[in-house]
Amino acid sequence: MTRFDHDARIDRARHAMEAHGVDVLLASLGSDLPYLTGYEAMPLERLTMAVIPRQGKAALVVPELEAPRVEGLPNIFSLHAWGETEDPVAIVADLMGSAKRAMIGDQTWAVFLLALQELRPDTSFSSARPLTEALRVVKEPAEIELLRRAGESADVVAGILAAHRFGGKAEAEVSREVASLLEDNGTDVAGFAIVASGPNGASPHHEPGDRVIEQGDAVVVDFGGKVGGYGSDTTRMFHVGAPSARYAEVHNLVQAAQEAAVAAVRPGVTAAGVDSAAREVISDAGYGEYFIHRTGHGIGLDGHEDPYIVAGNEQILRPGMAFSIEPGIYLPGEFGVRIEDIVVCTETGVERMNRSSRDVAVVS
Amino acid sequence: MTRFDHDARIDRARHAMEAHGVDVLLASLGSDLPYLTGYEAMPLERLTMAVIPRQGKAALVVPELEAPRVEGLPNIFSLHAWGETEDPVAIVADLMGSAKRAMIGDQTWAVFLLALQELRPDTSFSSARPLTEALRVVKEPAEIELLRRAGESADVVAGILAAHRFGGKAEAEVSREVASLLEDNGTDVAGFAIVASGPNGASPHHEPGDRVIEQGDAVVVDFGGKVGGYGSDTTRMFHVGAPSARYAEVHNLVQAAQEAAVAAVRPGVTAAGVDSAAREVISDAGYGEYFIHRTGHGIGLDGHEDPYIVAGNEQILRPGMAFSIEPGIYLPGEFGVRIEDIVVCTETGVERMNRSSRDVAVVS
Repeated sequence: MTRFDHDARIDRARHAMEAHGVDVLLASLGSDLPYLTGYEAMPLERLTMAVIPRQGKAALVVPELEAPRVEGLPNIFSLHAWGETEDPVAIVADLMGSAKRAMIGDQTWAVFLLALQELRPDTSFSSARPLTEALRVVKEPAEIELLRRAGESADVVAGILAAHRFGGKAEAEVSREVASLLEDNGTDVAGFAIVASGPNGASPHHEPGDRVIEQGDAVVVDFGGKVGGYGSDTTRMFHVGAPSARYAEVHNLVQAAQEAAVAAVRPGVTAAGVDSAAREVISDAGYGEYFIHRTGHGIGLDGHEDPYIVAGNEQILRPGMAFSIEPGIYLPGEFGVRIEDIVVCTETGVERMNRSSRDVAVVS
Repeated sequence: MTRFDHDARIDRARHAMEAHGVDVLLASLGSDLPYLTGYEAMPLERLTMAVIPRQGKAALVVPELEAPRVEGLPNIFSLHAWGETEDPVAIVADLMGSAKRAMIGDQTWAVFLLALQELRPDTSFSSARPLTEALRVVKEPAEIELLRRAGESADVVAGILAAHRFGGKAEAEVSREVASLLEDNGTDVAGFAIVASGPNGASPHHEPGDRVIEQGDAVVVDFGGKVGGYGSDTTRMFHVGAPSARYAEVHNLVQAAQEAAVAAVRPGVTAAGVDSAAREVISDAGYGEYFIHRTGHGIGLDGHEDPYIVAGNEQILRPGMAFSIEPGIYLPGEFGVRIEDIVVCTETGVERMNRSSRDVAVVS
């Protein structure tokens, strides 16, 4: 297992707290907590929360029955295991001491924030994102190595799928097969596998269902999982039998848009600039209204994080930023095409985490 | 697919809003939204939120790229699909109109609540749980039928596991096998499969890992998934080779505690009463300090929901309430034993959703 220097990360977080004038940082669900401590909270109704003051000891408040899961916490942390009849919010409120300004992780459940606000009426709460995303957005070399390994695993699966049988199977069945293939080929835990066939492909976040894949279907497969906590996220196109000229035209356009956006990545370019590189290709060909989502999203411990590759985001790319590039064209009632890779901005340009073929794979 | 009467549920929700003096109900992640509308939000950074005023039209605010996922919304809803460069929180704040008192779903991300509080400084926000859990805690017959089917699927898997090979396999491998068995035997989507072997069994929420299961290990297997949106959650014990006398003593004690708690379930009893029925058996035998969690939790659309079967919870059981009964004894460095069924409180007592053997299964 890759070991990260959590002490150094906490030092950086505390310097950032100083700069933001923040007295205490609260981290619960989401990736701020594992980034800073190595421990990930369970997404359940029992509160897990790190209470990190700007100076001195920090605490991890954790349900007693989950305390045995916690290992190797940074030294500044003490563990507060709370029993089933205790109120963990009161424990956190107490640990916050004299703090006046608190930042809290974005994915914390609203019910805990409401309860904290009630117990701490004189403390102001704001989103931790400006602080933690600034730390997390540039990946360390060991993080990039895990993204690389996650991408390689996804590429192996993409290669296997190009020779896979799709026709006659329900989307949900293929989705399960993709998840198994990921875990059989180097991914620790499969995360998701959208399989959207025929007209369902026009729904970018389609839930794979009972529809049986037929001859003549285009199939969007968007899949990923985690290696050492870091994500893969790849979309490849499959076609049962030879594609139509119309399909080929749209596929080539999306592929050209994806190439253009990847080629635009280098330090100093804005996130919006990468988005527009993809969007221009599609708009110039008259399909702009069918590209109904942003070009990409950052990836790391969270599957979606900064930087978001979207119009209006003037964030400037720096070496070490990792994100998806995934333009698409969605034709309601007909089909959809999306092509997606993870890339990392480097000193000189870009490194792709995915190298498997982006051509449409004709399958049976 | 089971169809529920969402219009009737919304009527009940609105009557409850009247009683609570609430002007608007906001539902995002978690099960309030699917309970009221049939639509489940994706757990991602793009906001999905239902805005339900006490009277008149309601709205579902959804990311444009997920709009094609939304089907069969109740008639009072209009769909507000927001584009990638819009601010969905501003849309919600606007739809809230003149509301002064808002309730918001517990699992909503804190970042959205903070943004709403900033845009609506004169609106008070509180947890929706007192309102929505009161609606959801008594299950309709069609909901109980889905819980029954989920339990039957889990029972089939428990039977298969009793003849399964455990020895020589990593916990994570067995965990994957359990997930596949669920999906091969009537469960729509496997949710979780804790496999905790030998000393790892003493960690109730152990994450299945690399540890290879050995001769002489007790193995806790706690698994579940969903059928039509409703959960299963069952724990059975396996032992590689014949158990020791000490193991048998502890197992029999947990089994007796589980029976005692199930036998205590009937209308009019408190949740705390069911907890103490299990706890007394274990405490009387001198193992009280090793039973480190509550006896159970409600189950329905959420894997954990009201009623919580825990000391101090004076909630009175009513027919139609569904929950787990899962006492355990955890001996650090040695092993753990937990036995868990889902039960439903009936007019006359209790119905078990799980009927597979609760004896320890001796496996290879």
